[in-house]
Amino acid sequence: MRNLLLLSTSTVHGSSFLEYCLSEVEKHFSGLSEILFIPYARPGGISHSDYTEIVEKALARINIEVVGIHELDDIRKEIGEFKGIYIGGGNTFLLIQSLYSNGLIPIIRDMVVNKGVRYMGSSAGTNVACSTINNTNDMPIVHPPSFDALKLIPFNINPHYLDPVVGSKHMGETRETRIKEFHFQSAIPVLGLREGSWLKIEGEKIALGGGLPARLFERNKDAREILDSDELNYLLKARQN
Amino acid sequence: MRNLLLLSTSTVHGSSFLEYCLSEVEKHFSGLSEILFIPYARPGGISHSDYTEIVEKALARINIEVVGIHELDDIRKEIGEFKGIYIGGGNTFLLIQSLYSNGLIPIIRDMVVNKGVRYMGSSAGTNVACSTINNTNDMPIVHPPSFDALKLIPFNINPHYLDPVVGSKHMGETRETRIKEFHFQSAIPVLGLREGSWLKIEGEKIALGGGLPARLFERNKDAREILDSDELNYLLKARQN
Repeated sequence: MRNLLLLSTSTVHGSSFLEYCLSEVEKHFSGLSEILFIPYARPGGISHSDYTEIVEKALARINIEVVGIHELDDIRKEIGEFKGIYIGGGNTFLLIQSLYSNGLIPIIRDMVVNKGVRYMGSSAGTNVACSTINNTNDMPIVHPPSFDALKLIPFNINPHYLDPVVGSKHMGETRETRIKEFHFQSAIPVLGLREGSWLKIEGEKIALGGGLPARLFERNKDAREILDSDELNYLLKARQN
Repeated sequence: MRNLLLLSTSTVHGSSFLEYCLSEVEKHFSGLSEILFIPYARPGGISHSDYTEIVEKALARINIEVVGIHELDDIRKEIGEFKGIYIGGGNTFLLIQSLYSNGLIPIIRDMVVNKGVRYMGSSAGTNVACSTINNTNDMPIVHPPSFDALKLIPFNINPHYLDPVVGSKHMGETRETRIKEFHFQSAIPVLGLREGSWLKIEGEKIALGGGLPARLFERNKDAREILDSDELNYLLKARQN
């Protein structure tokens, strides 16, 4: 049974890395003393080891040890030993390219979908858990071979979802406009997840956490605010692509 | 001799399409009674013909007729008859994918670089004039075969350049952070062009227009504000890729 914790962001303003959701992370990984961290998204260009150190410090507070995937000698062989995986945020294009170049897409998908390995993602790590990375906010700094992602869920999440700024004079597209442009190209539903929000997905049930509404975009429908998690369960039955 | 007008945006707040820069557009296309418009970027999902109509209305004020590329029977044959091309804004990924699928990348490049055809781009149309589309702000709603662009200039432009918002509590990356992440992957210089700004490029000379400074990002250097256009000419000698 799949068991996912998908965070819009790792950090909310004014608190430390994962601090705002640490009790939720603790519940998610309960019983595990060690998880695998995948630092490929490299926020701000940080090195794999420096990024892993930040996560180590954060999870030490709930007595979870962290192994960076770059520390493994034979990634595709050793990854199977872990019962929990966390993919951190940064640049989604760099992240998905690295997952492809290391041959990890089918392996991680199999671990999470068929073997009950617990998955956590934040920001870009949430994008890659979805059907495709078409709804990332990141800059396309590298060209990955495909935008198809891990497909742990059959819809997309737009993390760091932002409402249009009232009175803004900036002419760049709003987030809502961008997602609507996507729906001229695709029928994949997109859930806008505001900072401080997360989805907890167990089997066929979705719970929206963090106390904020999410915004759901579906092709040929008006966008709507979601407060009641139960309204989301049907998304798990959406067609992939 | 190449002759380009690259606009950060087609429209500034509170004025109509191309209104703010219409005298510059008039100079750029002076002597031409007709130009070709490429509406492939489809802002907000607008149709090719509706988008072309907006441009027709705007350029009628300076007595220039507009032909939409979708109106041509044999695009690759008939495009060679035009002496001016305007590629409009919208979604950069959709635009470059459409340029590739119609086989237009080498044709337009040849027209502008070798045959003196005058080029104008706004927003996404400015992104595709550059070396690559790696520095677009758009959402990757489709997966183009490559991020290589028309390479009419050997550097990249980030249109709608935005300064970090002082006091913002949003944790998404700033524009500057995103461009710095790019420079961990590439040595292509990136010029942040604020809304209301443009570059006019004639041969080996760049003029920055609109009265605002631009922000230049180069690998392994501090970002800096550019006020004097002459400082930019050396960018035309940058290595492609």
